[in-house]
Amino acid sequence: MIKETSSNASNRKFLRSACRITGALEILSGRWKALTLIHISEGKNRFSLLKQVLPTVSDQVLGRLLRELEADGLIGKTIIPEVPVRVDYSLTDKGAAVLPILEELAEWYDKR
Amino acid sequence: MIKETSSNASNRKFLRSACRITGALEILSGRWKALTLIHISEGKNRFSLLKQVLPTVSDQVLGRLLRELEADGLIGKTIIPEVPVRVDYSLTDKGAAVLPILEELAEWYDKR
Repeated sequence: MIKETSSNASNRKFLRSACRITGALEILSGRWKALTLIHISEGKNRFSLLKQVLPTVSDQVLGRLLRELEADGLIGKTIIPEVPVRVDYSLTDKGAAVLPILEELAEWYDKR
Repeated sequence: MIKETSSNASNRKFLRSACRITGALEILSGRWKALTLIHISEGKNRFSLLKQVLPTVSDQVLGRLLRELEADGLIGKTIIPEVPVRVDYSLTDKGAAVLPILEELAEWYDKR
């Protein structure tokens, strides 16, 4: 805990921590983002499968979501040279590592 | 983990979990929200003290932030009948309980 009389070192630590929390929340809190991540972890690992479980999300929005999750390093994609070409998504280590934290958030949310 | 052949019961569990995660992220991810919560936990427990550490946040935005955090049950306020009246903010149990989860998110964010 940082006291009113905290040193510059602990103030810097605090600010760094705050920036990282804000960064993490920015990555995760986009509409449908956490949900898409969970669906992929549960085996809905293709565009068409995700469309089935997220029927109200447009193709355009789902495409953007997947690109953002990939750019943030939470999912990777494997292109399978079938006809037509198939794209499989999977969680990266980073993506998998956040799932238990999201579950903790869910448990915390329940305690009201 | 839910398999492709999951039962309705586990599907329901999944959807419930997803809703709670979305709910938790909605509470926390407003601009400045987590940061304000952390500042209050660190002793910046009055409007004027928060203004010092969040100089770019307008009075109007800070007032709204504090009302939202209070409405979501993360902070409480104590009105101290001085002249002028003083208002002290403090974390509720629920607000305090989320801080270690936010710290886990920060650590996760660092691993890239």
